[in-house]
Parts: sequence; C-alpha cells; structure tokens
Amino acid sequence: MNSSIVRIIIGQVLKVEAALLLLPCITALVYQEKVGIYYLITAAACLAVGFIFTFRKSRNDVFYLKEGLVATSLSWVVLSIFGAVPFYISREIPSFVDALFETVSGFTTTGSSILTDVEVLSRTALFWRSFTHWVGGMGVLVFLLAIIPLSGGSNFNLMKAESPGPSVGKLVPKVAYTARILYVIYFGISVIETILLMAGGMTFYEALLTTFGTAGTGGFGFLNSSMGSFSPYLQWVITIFMILFGVNFNAYYFILFRKVKKAFQMEEVRAYFLIILIAVAAITGDLVRTMNFSNAIRTSAFQVGSIITTTGFSTADFNTWSQTSRTILVLLMFIGACAGSTGGGIKVSRILVLIKTVFKELNSFLHPKSIKKIKMDDKPIEHEVVRATNVYFCSYMIIFAFSVLLISLENYDLTTNFTAVAATFNNIGPGLELVGPAANFSFLNAFSKCILIFDMLAGRLELFPLLILFHPGLWKEVFTRKRKIIESRNLDRKK
Amino acid sequence: MNSSIVRIIIGQVLKVEAALLLLPCITALVYQEKVGIYYLITAAACLAVGFIFTFRKSRNDVFYLKEGLVATSLSWVVLSIFGAVPFYISREIPSFVDALFETVSGFTTTGSSILTDVEVLSRTALFWRSFTHWVGGMGVLVFLLAIIPLSGGSNFNLMKAESPGPSVGKLVPKVAYTARILYVIYFGISVIETILLMAGGMTFYEALLTTFGTAGTGGFGFLNSSMGSFSPYLQWVITIFMILFGVNFNAYYFILFRKVKKAFQMEEVRAYFLIILIAVAAITGDLVRTMNFSNAIRTSAFQVGSIITTTGFSTADFNTWSQTSRTILVLLMFIGACAGSTGGGIKVSRILVLIKTVFKELNSFLHPKSIKKIKMDDKPIEHEVVRATNVYFCSYMIIFAFSVLLISLENYDLTTNFTAVAATFNNIGPGLELVGPAANFSFLNAFSKCILIFDMLAGRLELFPLLILFHPGLWKEVFTRKRKIIESRNLDRKK
Repeated sequence: MNSSIVRIIIGQVLKVEAALLLLPCITALVYQEKVGIYYLITAAACLAVGFIFTFRKSRNDVFYLKEGLVATSLSWVVLSIFGAVPFYISREIPSFVDALFETVSGFTTTGSSILTDVEVLSRTALFWRSFTHWVGGMGVLVFLLAIIPLSGGSNFNLMKAESPGPSVGKLVPKVAYTARILYVIYFGISVIETILLMAGGMTFYEALLTTFGTAGTGGFGFLNSSMGSFSPYLQWVITIFMILFGVNFNAYYFILFRKVKKAFQMEEVRAYFLIILIAVAAITGDLVRTMNFSNAIRTSAFQVGSIITTTGFSTADFNTWSQTSRTILVLLMFIGACAGSTGGGIKVSRILVLIKTVFKELNSFLHPKSIKKIKMDDKPIEHEVVRATNVYFCSYMIIFAFSVLLISLENYDLTTNFTAVAATFNNIGPGLELVGPAANFSFLNAFSKCILIFDMLAGRLELFPLLILFHPGLWKEVFTRKRKIIESRNLDRKK
Repeated sequence: MNSSIVRIIIGQVLKVEAALLLLPCITALVYQEKVGIYYLITAAACLAVGFIFTFRKSRNDVFYLKEGLVATSLSWVVLSIFGAVPFYISREIPSFVDALFETVSGFTTTGSSILTDVEVLSRTALFWRSFTHWVGGMGVLVFLLAIIPLSGGSNFNLMKAESPGPSVGKLVPKVAYTARILYVIYFGISVIETILLMAGGMTFYEALLTTFGTAGTGGFGFLNSSMGSFSPYLQWVITIFMILFGVNFNAYYFILFRKVKKAFQMEEVRAYFLIILIAVAAITGDLVRTMNFSNAIRTSAFQVGSIITTTGFSTADFNTWSQTSRTILVLLMFIGACAGSTGGGIKVSRILVLIKTVFKELNSFLHPKSIKKIKMDDKPIEHEVVRATNVYFCSYMIIFAFSVLLISLENYDLTTNFTAVAATFNNIGPGLELVGPAANFSFLNAFSKCILIFDMLAGRLELFPLLILFHPGLWKEVFTRKRKIIESRNLDRKK
C-alpha cells in the first residue's frame, strides 16, 4: 500500500475544497450575511491541511487499484468532514453528527436532510448545501471514469480503456481528456436548466440551487414544501432535467460526436425510458382517481423521475399515496438511474445484466450445450463484468440487511427502517412513513445517523471503495509498511 | 423434450398420492367421520388418472436435466391439485383457490393458511392437511438428491455424484440407495418426536400431527392458538426437533456412519447453530423486559427455531414484539435452514457462499494477483457452484420484487405485502401485520393468492424447475416434437 500517494491525493482534494468554499463566501458577500466568515475560516483550514498533506513528495508513484479505491473513499470522507465544519461552527446545525449527515447527504447527492425547517437557514448555508450536490455529481463522474473501469465492474466504457496501467502517469492523460468532455456536458446541461428555470420566473439564486440539486441528482431544495408550490412549467422543466441527468453520459458523448443513432440504440437508455414510461402510466392511472389528468400525469412524472434518478425532489407527499404507487416507487428506488450518470441505486444496466443472467440460466437448462454469452448493445459481455455485477448485488443486499437490522434497534416501524435505508443507500433522499417526503431524518439517534452516513457513502462509491477501509488486511499492510520504513531508517542510522 | 417420460413420472406420482390418501381414510374410519368418503373418491380418481398416464410406455427413456426439472415441478403442481380436491368436494374449504392454496402450502411445507378457524375442520381434514407437510418434506429430500445435483446448484453432495448420466437407468440405483437412507433418518427422527410428544401428554393423533408439521418444517397446527397453550416441556421438544429438522441431512448421514466429528465440523451446520444462538440471545434480551427469564428464553428459542427452519409454528404473537425482534425474525426468514434439509429460505450454505464471495472480492482488491478459491469445509468450491448461487440469488430477488409489486395491487400496507411474500416464498407460514401469526391469508383476493401459490412452489422447488414451465422455448419444443411425431405417423400411413 502506497499511502503517501493517497495522502497527496487527499491533500489536493482539500485544496480544491478550499477553492469551492469561496463560492459560499461570495454568496455571503452578495447577500451581506455575516455567516460567510465561517466558510472563509474553513477554506483557510482546508488550504492549510491540504498544504501539509502535499508538502512532502511521494517516494514513488506506484498507483494500483487499491490506492485508487482508498483515495476515493477517503476523499469523500474528508470532503464531507471539512464540508460540515461551517454548518457546525456557525451553529446553523448545532450537532456535528447532524452537520456531517447533511454534508455527506450533499456530497453523495443523496438529499436526505436532518433539518425540520430549511427556510431559516442563511442563504449562504443553503447555497453551500445545494452546491455540495453539484460537486458530488461531478466527482462521481470522474470516479466512475477513473476508478470503476479498473475494477472491471462497470459498463461505463467511455475510455475504452485498454487495461489501464498501474501507474498514475499512464492513466492521467486519457482520463483528463474524457473528464474534460464530461465536465463540458455536465456544465452545459446545468447552464441550460438554469436559464429555463429563470425563464419560468425563478431568481438566479433559486434557479442555481435547483439546478445543483437536479444535476447532482441530489434533492436538497430551499423550501420546506420542496417543489409543491412551483408552477407546472417549472415542475415539467425539473422533471425533464432530472430524467436527463439520469441518462448514461455515454449517450451524450455519442450525441456530441454526432453519433445520435448510437445514443438511442443504447440498451440501458432504452430500458431506462421504458421503465419510466411504465411507472408514470401506472401511477397516473392511480392518481387520476383523486385529481384531474394533467395534474396526475405531472405529479406522477415528477415523482417517478425524481425517484428513479435518485434525486428525491417531491411535489406531493407520496407517503399518502396508494400502496401500489408506493410500492412502485420503492422498487424504482432500488433500480436507480443509468450507470455512468450522477444517479444512484443498483443502476439499470446492472438490473439488465442480472435479468439476462437469469434468462441465460433458464436457457441453459433447455439447451445444456449452448455456450451463448450474455449480450448488451449486441456485444457479448465479458464474464468478468457479469461476475462483478453478481458480487456487487450480493454485497448490496448484505449491507442492506445489516443496515435495516441496526436501524431497527430504535424500534420504529419496519417501513420507516426499510425505506430509510433504501433512501440513503440508493442516494435518493426521502423514504416512506416517518422519513417520508414531508418529514426528515432528524428524529433518529446518532448511532442510526452514523449507519445511514455509512450507507450514503457506500451507495455512492459503489460499495467496495468504502468496504475496503474496513478490511483489516489494508491497515495491516499500511502499518507493516510504516514499521518497515522506520526500521530501515533506524538501521541506516546505526550504520 | 421427452414428454412421455414426464407423463409417466406424473402418473406414478398420482398412484403414490392415491396410496397416501388412504391414510386420511383410515383416520375417518377411526373417528367415524363421513367426510372420509371424499378422500376415497379422490384416491380412486388419482389411481385412475395415474393408470391412464402410465398405460402407454415411453418410447425412449432419455432423461435429461430439463425433463427432471419439468417432472419435478409438474409433480408438485399435480399433487397439490388432486390434494385440494377432498377439501373442496367435502365443502370444508368451499373455494377451490383457497383449497389449492392450503394444499400447496401443505406440500411445499409452508404452513400459510387461509383458514380462520382450524378447529372446526374434521379430524380427517386436519390429518390430511398436516400429512401433506410430511409428504412434502420427504419429497424435498429426494428432489434435492436427484435433481439439484444435476443442475450443479447445491452443496448437497451426499451422492458424490460423478456427473450423473443422462439416462434414468444410470441414476436410479444410487439415488434409490441414498434415498432409502434419508427416509430412514427422516422416519426415525419423526418416530422419536412422536414418542416424546406423547410422553408430554399428547394423544397419538395430536403427536402425529405435530410431528408432521415439524418434520416437514411445515407449520400447520390443529389449534387456532398454534402452540401457545402447550406445556413448556412440549414447547421445548418441538423447538429442539424443529431445529434438528433444519440441519443438513448430510450431518445425520455422517453420524449414522459413525463420522460424528465430521458432522460437527460441517461449516454450514456450525453457522446455522451460531445464527440461532445469536438470534435467541438477542430476542431473549428483548423479551425479558416483559416476562420472566425462563418464559423469555423458551418463547424466543421456539420462535427463532420456528422461523429459521421455516416451520412457522408460534407460541406467541410475534407481530406485537419490538421492531428489533421483528426485524431479526424477518432476516431469519430469508436466511432459512441448511441446504439438504426440509427447510426453505435462501439456505445457510448459500448465504455463506455469498458472504465469502464478497470477502474474496475485497481481498482481490488488496492482492490482485491472488487466485484463491472460495472454500467450504476446507474444500475449494467449484466455480460453477458459486455462479449457480449468484444466479439463484438474483432470480430470487427478482421474483421477490415482482411478487411484492403484484400483491401491492390490493392496497394493503407494505409490511403486510412484504412479509406475506417473504413468508410464502421462503415456505415459512406466518408473516407480520395482517398476515401475522394470529391472523391468516384468507382476506386476500384470488389473484394475490395465486401469486403466493406460485411463490410457495417456486421457493420450495429452488426457483428454476418452476420458472422453466414459463419458458416459451420449453413449450415450443414440446409441441414441435408432437407435430413431428404426428407428421411422421401420417407419412408412415401414406406409405
């Protein structure tokens, strides 16, 4: 384990966070809020620690998969801890666990909140809260790009990585190029959404915050009623952009390079839209019994888009809907958005692979000698991808079960516990019952909040980067290496 | 697809059912109940259809895996349909769907009931109802033995089958031998339980019915209060035997051949007892707040044993317990008993394989060049077994999700829907809320009942044998073959 390179990466991440924290400072200046000073202090702290971390150069730049995983998960953890500081020292969120919950929820683009009243927050705090979504979404795109292909677990093959080498040097140029394209797409769609929202009567500030929440598929809003009071136009704009941000960014890449046909042929994207269509139709049919058709379809489309993309905005309290609609939404929570998007959940492509595996199994009973491979987009899927998907799914379910068990220690009802975990682990935001869209997570105790913080991070980082932090082997390796270095130094001295 | 051999197997199964139906007839004679005549009629019908099915010999005895799967699932279906007839024609269960639900629940050793009052049933009907559990348990043991090893999906390697050949002839002697040993064990433990129960003051009839429910890990009782009114001695006897019937029968096989040490070294069996121990301790700690220790540990051990072995007896309404205890029970529902037992659920060995897969994945991140295989009982597990376990798990979750969705159309609460599916799919019996141990499944509509009937069968038959019946390819094969035969006959005639 090359821990010095991990240290340097975290140092750089902190420097970036220092820069990001200047934006809420500007917000504070614009709105003349004194609270800005806390963001400035935090920025300074980030910068200082960042410099300390990056001061000593790394002895070697060997960078294997495990360094990548550890660096990624620690980056998210450190980002969140420092990001929580201004909420805490400004006393806007007086408990540090709460502040951390809110910030992790932000950076992981979950959108679950412990705040009972968001409207009392300063504009600066609201800005920072939503901005973490946007940053988180951006981070996820690079993460998917740089780390996941190494682990063979994703269909996100923008890079068409011919087995990326073990050293950073080799990996960087290609990732940097593709990352730039992704950022352009991400930034571009964000700008269009902001403009369209402003055209609907929102102020720049409101439009920006809403866009942050949509782009990162996050879900933090700036009103207690979430989006219920918005005009139909605004609701439709948000619906469309939520769904767009849940599409595999591969598709936009294709469109950008004028391969529009190829974009629409992507199996995952088609399945994604098909699921949305069916769910919207089913829920509309259900809602139309209590409201007129245009309201029903708008509310249904908004909520389906919000849940499947794991954004978590709401225009209605779906906790009060029929059990059928509620169950559909719960299932959508697990399906999640496309791989290679900012959305969470299991991901449509994984679900497709799992379903195809089952069909293949049934076929193999009928035709035992057939050795057909599972195909996606008409190309056979590598055995390794199928295996990784299966392992992911097992790990997912095991973590899920344990989380529900641990949350149940608080003795709330099963639906609350179940959907609280589903909403955080899939990075959605609201669940059902006590954690429904009209409620929040503040009533849980610190232990449960910590479990959910873990779930948010695990869900966002596709499980393994976070799980590996709990592997004793990792720390043994880190410490034996440290000990060896110290020993060799002592040996040098003696000589 | 060699459908003539499937036909013959089903015919033979029907003949066996005719013989089995004579037992309730004897019960009717003993208790002088007129209802016995309906069982006699059904027996005659089974015999007649059985003869028709077996009258024409099979052209060839080629018997591949698919024939095995289809024969197994159709056998269970046909057994259940004929088994439901006496309930229906005697008007003791006036709706055929209900009668079928009850019988499927019996043969699949589930124990979910649609009866609000079992005490009004005739003794003959109660006998038949419980007897189906015992027969089902017996059937499962052979099924595991004969079919599952063919599909490579089980750790049940009593047979140590060196890739059993494609023809029945080859397979039969070895299976027949091992099946006989299994039956001896099954029968032996049943006899001991019956004696111990009678020693505790039960009549022979009561002891027999209770043993049927325990041995098959079924759960049908003969009192509305299930086992709550039984003496502590009886409750402990039942607890111990439930747990014993959930043990992998491999262990008994070892003990029978004086390899006691080997039996206790079985990883699955140890994990099984460890899980029971932890769950009993946790729930006892929870219950002790409302009752004295000896009651708490007895109630907790009984319920944990009942749920993990998927029996489904109850001595208390665990629906009213704390959320923590309820959640533990729900998780136990999914874990299930050992493979190679009469219990249902995912099975302890599968859970072990899944957990080991996750750890292996984490290790592979730390040591990418390591190619260690997953081990069980110190022996490396074949890749094929790991794959089959993963596929099983995916299929399991997909069926589960769809079932919950379809049940939710009735608009009951999520916990009811979720646990109704969990209780039937894992062949347990009672769930929570509206389908809790003090309630039953009668309030559901026919559609939901059919879904749950499907789930009970799918769970019992390890999914694929039932799923394959819905594969269009299978029926195409059957019909094209039929057409070809007819065509060739016509051709012969023309000549």
